[in-house]
Amino acid sequence: MADDARHPYRWGYADTRLEFDGPRSVRMTGTRYPLSGQSMPHLLPYVEQMLGLTLDAASIRPDSTPSVPAPQLDPALMAALERLLPSERRSTDPRARLSHSHGQLAIGEIDRLVYGGRIARVADVVVEPIDEEEVRAIVAAAVEHDACLVPYGGGTNVSGALMYPEDEARTIVSMDMRRMRRVLSVDRANGSALVEAGISGTDLEAALGALGYTCGHTPDSMEFSTLGGWIATNASGMKKNRYGNIEDIVVEATLVTPAGTVETRRPAARTSTGMQPLSLLFGSEGNLGVITKALIAIHPKPETCRYGSIVFRDFADGVAFLKEVRTAGALPASIRLVNNREFRLGQALRPASHGLHAWKSALQRQWLFGVLGFDLTTLAACTLVMEGTPDEVARQERELRRLAKRFRAVWGGEENGRRGYLLTFAIAYLRDFMSQVGVVAETFETSVPWDRIEEVCGATERALASECAARGVVGQPYLSYRVTQTYHTGVCIYFTMAFSGHGLADPGSAFHDIEQTLRQEILDHGGSLSHHHGVGKLRQRFLPQVHSAAGLRLIRAAKSAVDPGNTFGIGNGACGR
Amino acid sequence: MADDARHPYRWGYADTRLEFDGPRSVRMTGTRYPLSGQSMPHLLPYVEQMLGLTLDAASIRPDSTPSVPAPQLDPALMAALERLLPSERRSTDPRARLSHSHGQLAIGEIDRLVYGGRIARVADVVVEPIDEEEVRAIVAAAVEHDACLVPYGGGTNVSGALMYPEDEARTIVSMDMRRMRRVLSVDRANGSALVEAGISGTDLEAALGALGYTCGHTPDSMEFSTLGGWIATNASGMKKNRYGNIEDIVVEATLVTPAGTVETRRPAARTSTGMQPLSLLFGSEGNLGVITKALIAIHPKPETCRYGSIVFRDFADGVAFLKEVRTAGALPASIRLVNNREFRLGQALRPASHGLHAWKSALQRQWLFGVLGFDLTTLAACTLVMEGTPDEVARQERELRRLAKRFRAVWGGEENGRRGYLLTFAIAYLRDFMSQVGVVAETFETSVPWDRIEEVCGATERALASECAARGVVGQPYLSYRVTQTYHTGVCIYFTMAFSGHGLADPGSAFHDIEQTLRQEILDHGGSLSHHHGVGKLRQRFLPQVHSAAGLRLIRAAKSAVDPGNTFGIGNGACGR
Repeated sequence: MADDARHPYRWGYADTRLEFDGPRSVRMTGTRYPLSGQSMPHLLPYVEQMLGLTLDAASIRPDSTPSVPAPQLDPALMAALERLLPSERRSTDPRARLSHSHGQLAIGEIDRLVYGGRIARVADVVVEPIDEEEVRAIVAAAVEHDACLVPYGGGTNVSGALMYPEDEARTIVSMDMRRMRRVLSVDRANGSALVEAGISGTDLEAALGALGYTCGHTPDSMEFSTLGGWIATNASGMKKNRYGNIEDIVVEATLVTPAGTVETRRPAARTSTGMQPLSLLFGSEGNLGVITKALIAIHPKPETCRYGSIVFRDFADGVAFLKEVRTAGALPASIRLVNNREFRLGQALRPASHGLHAWKSALQRQWLFGVLGFDLTTLAACTLVMEGTPDEVARQERELRRLAKRFRAVWGGEENGRRGYLLTFAIAYLRDFMSQVGVVAETFETSVPWDRIEEVCGATERALASECAARGVVGQPYLSYRVTQTYHTGVCIYFTMAFSGHGLADPGSAFHDIEQTLRQEILDHGGSLSHHHGVGKLRQRFLPQVHSAAGLRLIRAAKSAVDPGNTFGIGNGACGR
Repeated sequence: MADDARHPYRWGYADTRLEFDGPRSVRMTGTRYPLSGQSMPHLLPYVEQMLGLTLDAASIRPDSTPSVPAPQLDPALMAALERLLPSERRSTDPRARLSHSHGQLAIGEIDRLVYGGRIARVADVVVEPIDEEEVRAIVAAAVEHDACLVPYGGGTNVSGALMYPEDEARTIVSMDMRRMRRVLSVDRANGSALVEAGISGTDLEAALGALGYTCGHTPDSMEFSTLGGWIATNASGMKKNRYGNIEDIVVEATLVTPAGTVETRRPAARTSTGMQPLSLLFGSEGNLGVITKALIAIHPKPETCRYGSIVFRDFADGVAFLKEVRTAGALPASIRLVNNREFRLGQALRPASHGLHAWKSALQRQWLFGVLGFDLTTLAACTLVMEGTPDEVARQERELRRLAKRFRAVWGGEENGRRGYLLTFAIAYLRDFMSQVGVVAETFETSVPWDRIEEVCGATERALASECAARGVVGQPYLSYRVTQTYHTGVCIYFTMAFSGHGLADPGSAFHDIEQTLRQEILDHGGSLSHHHGVGKLRQRFLPQVHSAAGLRLIRAAKSAVDPGNTFGIGNGACGR
């Protein structure tokens, strides 16, 4: 099966994990990331300080082996699939079935697989089409034999979108799209490419990069998540200021449904041809059919890519700066602001420094805290990615430096910016390590109007503290956040939360309740249900607070129109049971 | 009824029209536009040269008075409307009914009203709600009494979207939304405003302008078209590079349908909350319900607004320049390129020049054609609108001037740019004048990939010539075009066509056939069905070439879900009968 390098359940690559390399020190294994191979002596102390508890190697929980029930196989369906696909692209192997039966929710998916030993419902058979014709044939077979068909891309969703309905009695066929990863054509004159939907972000950038192009879509999950998954989840990328979010990038897409293929015959840069079926693909979360290919905007690779960082006295200064940058006409490809705790978490992930480097660091610290009077417990920091022509990048940096001064900030240099930006990909492994030592950790996100940022973050922080106190959580909970995207009318906030599971009867269930309470708190204070993670199963019960009844009816009617038999029965969002 | 200053049928204001002010000279009446009150001696000669015929005042066709059939009024419905609305906001007056029964198609609407004396189906009663509660009550009454309800905004559509189905047996209620024109709230902190959907572009800009803001949406029709109409048509504005098209401007909108209100409770800058009902409002063309209000992005009025113009040796140079501008990072709010004929049409609309001005013009022409060697019969020109801070505008102009040089072009100055931009609003009156002298004239548009611009324009030109020749059109047809919008993967092309109707048995029907032939030609060469005019009735038969059957099914299911009884029975686009 595709992508053997990945861990079958946990986030990311099998060769990469955090582990104790001494009683008080942690290192990242493998060689894939800047952090890899380095010993990090500051992480444990920081986590212990934040959570008010003590961690050690002895507390590592052992992995269990998940049990996989026998598949429920409809013989007629299996015979049909046998006719359609060679055996190497059909599997009922328990490991393959299991790895296609979950996303990446720390609580509810990964914890159940790694420590609970089972998940509610496992796919019965995994198929791997290689082209659209096969996809159509598989869909037709699923309809004919009343199977439940579920498209599978990178398996990185964190909304429970890949949790199969527990009571699904039909044979569940997981359709792994990752063999469909060809760039079918490149239109240099018009800056677009037709690409199969199973391609991962990394593979897409490699393929386009070889031709001198980039798509520019850079979600945190881009190593694994796929084009089709991006559309189905309405994904957002770190460099959206330059390249757009997925809805800006996709010119047209093809959706294969039980009622036929939904597509636009004459895709154009922009049209007014009545209501657009394409618009419903964004956020469709596997409910309507399977996305097989998309026409996407591509751009010549930027001549220059420069990182940068800025240190602010506090988060509020940083937010004010971000807002000003939007109107100054010098928006970099990526601009992200971490709050104080998240900044210090980034610092805690540094390797031990020695010699000249340690001396330079000490000097920098002396300058920042001694001379300029910054406070380590309030400062916040921004990472920047600037792309374009050398002129464009130089102008952006000039403008950003000028604005930074106005907001009492200090230019933190390129290396810190690069490190902060790339940390995104490595930090995902931290969650699973925390879980091993009994700390419940997860991320979640929302979008909020500019003037509600403080309110939403504050309310979330207070709600988490009181929920944990009420449940007798040991020590105190941790909440950090960053502004990852800015828009004209608001921003995306990305939270990281953690608390000790020690002593709780059911840490997973406590987490679930707390998470739902926090979401309600976010909604009550003007935040959205999700900026880019989606609804899946996790946020389903909040939908009536978001869409009016008539709006939900409209969505469900669209579903019924193209999938009257609920063949695509994954039941996400408004299409839940 | 709202907007008494408008002509009841023709485009625009009643006080503004083109008329002969001498045997060989034309002037624009009124005082509303820069052209108003000026005698234009060059227009007739240009039109005669282009069309190969002679025009004179004696050929003016007199207007007829359209006959209006008696209304078909369901007494129970009328009683319900009487209970809901005071008499001054209900009307069965023939003139009011007629003015609510057409858009602005030159052929098929205006010609039938002004010369044909009748249109197929006229609204039976016009109602004018003042708030959303009244709208809901009217919708409920229409459902209860099985009426056909049609939202009415500015009445400016040019796709037959307001043509009532000829066989509509139910009472047709035209719901004029223009009394709902309040700015309900302004959120300065987050750059948005909640606005009632019946507001016109001019009124919206005036209301926001008084507060220091602009919405920036500037369709050619902005004097009359409404916010609700923009959404329903998926409108595009001249300054979309800075402010976006309507789908970029609208954060959230409210749609009242027979099944209830479709809206998002927690609008946010960007979300991933599953499929978005809002997305179907764009291009809904009155099929789903009535749009009552929208949350839109607003921007502080730009400190500086500067016009500019550039003259190119030919259209191809201009296109290459436009493409380069998109990647140079100095995109002005508006940039539009007219082809040679359209440039000369603009020149033909100049008043007679005398004294110093004439001398200066002559000198400029000598420079351009004599010294630089430009050819009057091949050159093309660009008008620019730059907005922003003084710095931003200065930087844009610097960059544009630098690029212009690379494309062998000459900076044509601010006054020509302003004139070219503002001509848009006045030129609409030309069409009706041409019609008076027996020339069939209309505009139409499409979007095409960058590398198909020449092909689509050429194919359209050739098809028009051969169609006219085959029909024995006197003289030769006229086709000019401009690039009005640029995007990453393509552009919008806006065509103006005209030919003599003299001697044709049925000029309107000839036009209709030719127009449909040209559209097919455009589609066959890679153009789209429409960039911003919409489908309405005019382009309905081409829809199966655009959307797959499953896509159309999805759209119709959405319609049925919120309007099962087809109360909103205008039958546009995919919802036609």
